[in-house]
Amino acid sequence: MTETVIITDVGPRDGLQNQPKVLSPAERLRLIEALVAARLPAVEIGSFVSPKAVPAMANTDQIAAGLPAANTHFSALISNMRGYEQARAAGIQSLNIPVAASNTMNEKNIRMDNQQAIALTTEIIARAKTDDVAIIPYIATAWECPFEGPVKAQTVRAMTRTFLQAGATAVVIADTIGAANPAQVKSLYAALISEHGTGQLGAHFHDTRGFGVANATAAFEVGVRRFDASIAGLGGCPFAPGASGNVATEDLVLLFEQMGIATGIDLRKLVAAAELAADLTASNAGGNALGWLRSQRDKGLL
Amino acid sequence: MTETVIITDVGPRDGLQNQPKVLSPAERLRLIEALVAARLPAVEIGSFVSPKAVPAMANTDQIAAGLPAANTHFSALISNMRGYEQARAAGIQSLNIPVAASNTMNEKNIRMDNQQAIALTTEIIARAKTDDVAIIPYIATAWECPFEGPVKAQTVRAMTRTFLQAGATAVVIADTIGAANPAQVKSLYAALISEHGTGQLGAHFHDTRGFGVANATAAFEVGVRRFDASIAGLGGCPFAPGASGNVATEDLVLLFEQMGIATGIDLRKLVAAAELAADLTASNAGGNALGWLRSQRDKGLL
Repeated sequence: MTETVIITDVGPRDGLQNQPKVLSPAERLRLIEALVAARLPAVEIGSFVSPKAVPAMANTDQIAAGLPAANTHFSALISNMRGYEQARAAGIQSLNIPVAASNTMNEKNIRMDNQQAIALTTEIIARAKTDDVAIIPYIATAWECPFEGPVKAQTVRAMTRTFLQAGATAVVIADTIGAANPAQVKSLYAALISEHGTGQLGAHFHDTRGFGVANATAAFEVGVRRFDASIAGLGGCPFAPGASGNVATEDLVLLFEQMGIATGIDLRKLVAAAELAADLTASNAGGNALGWLRSQRDKGLL
Repeated sequence: MTETVIITDVGPRDGLQNQPKVLSPAERLRLIEALVAARLPAVEIGSFVSPKAVPAMANTDQIAAGLPAANTHFSALISNMRGYEQARAAGIQSLNIPVAASNTMNEKNIRMDNQQAIALTTEIIARAKTDDVAIIPYIATAWECPFEGPVKAQTVRAMTRTFLQAGATAVVIADTIGAANPAQVKSLYAALISEHGTGQLGAHFHDTRGFGVANATAAFEVGVRRFDASIAGLGGCPFAPGASGNVATEDLVLLFEQMGIATGIDLRKLVAAAELAADLTASNAGGNALGWLRSQRDKGLL
């Protein structure tokens, strides 16, 4: 039987939230439509957070209202109960909550310490159960915090346990600043999988140091089957070459497909989506594999 | 005890041979000097081949004559007995010979079929023994040939056995077109290492599809400890974004150092060498990690 992985494109959220160019709701919907056309199984459509803090994510309710009819699993990011209510009102039934593994990052991000952030997340999980809403906590800066340095595996293990016991649908371990290496990735996931199995664990890598594909390979080898990625590697600053964002969706899809692991994604249409992402953001965005993929597409080989 | 790997920078040969801009011998020597300054343990300085076929590699005897005094292991590429004589006359005692794993590639490259190419290589190995010259055959297109498709592991295993039995110093397995994935890399090296151990096997990856770092990680995991790389990822066409060349030296050094595996290389000076490589080739060459490495260097953190 063919192995499979599930790739969630977080480009419309994690990719666009820091772009110098703020896209209109119509443009954001065009990107989501291109991802749906490429048969992405899951797409994070945006976030319900303060438009003052993150102007690029304003009006995500309009995105929710305009989503194409599709089998795609749509989710959104929230960071508090207010965002939860907004997302529910917009009809989004699958919500992601970032919680950093270090105090400093939580305080900078959501003005709470770890204990408060964990308590709020478990409170939202409890509430979501009664509403039949799926909650996926994201443990951010899970390997390294830009302010505190290396994060103890014990911290991430305890948070994962807390969230899953509280009833989280899954937990995503996020290398928010792209600092982890493949050895560290294997070590942490092996510990988590020995405790929880693989079904409820996801991986979210950034390509800051060019390790994104290697880290995804490492995570796959120890059993991870759910991966975030961002179309065209959106998420870095498009005007600073090398300041890469999320690992690119096209890179992970090519990697897995070439290893004989099915993603269900249409690579030809994914290349078109990556080109659209670069056009919309007026940037030179593109994964490490995009040049080769385009050459194959242009030869009629995709 | 700390694990170590040996990285050979092939930029002055594989990196420069296809550049649209042909560098002068003085410029080629400047690049080699920068690599020596960064404490690369080994550098491939150029090739002794027909200057009509590869104009960028003309006058490699001048490179050999101008090499800095250093502990660096210097090698050069040859493809026949004439090149062998030229390299010896230039005083280079460590020579690499490319032999493709497929007939079509050998015929296009050196106008011989596999059997003739293997016979010539073993003949040069025999001759080199009497001269105390080290010969390292490179098995090119070892996973996939652009003309014939997938290459049988059995073919590469038989060639490796032949060369080592004939007295080759080592054999390098080369993913010339950057087509291998980490699963294939592990599979082939595991078979080769079970037969020969790791000491005489090297890896040469290209980053065409963005898999270079993942493939190096995979090879390391099954025991490979000798890796080729090219400063700034030189080797692709600098005018086609994404048409990447060899895996970049800075990417591999960062990968290994962050996994706690010593390379002995000075990352700060390596970044300077990568910048020089881009300057000399008038290109935007640079590994996937270079942007992050430069930002660290600029903050005084390298």
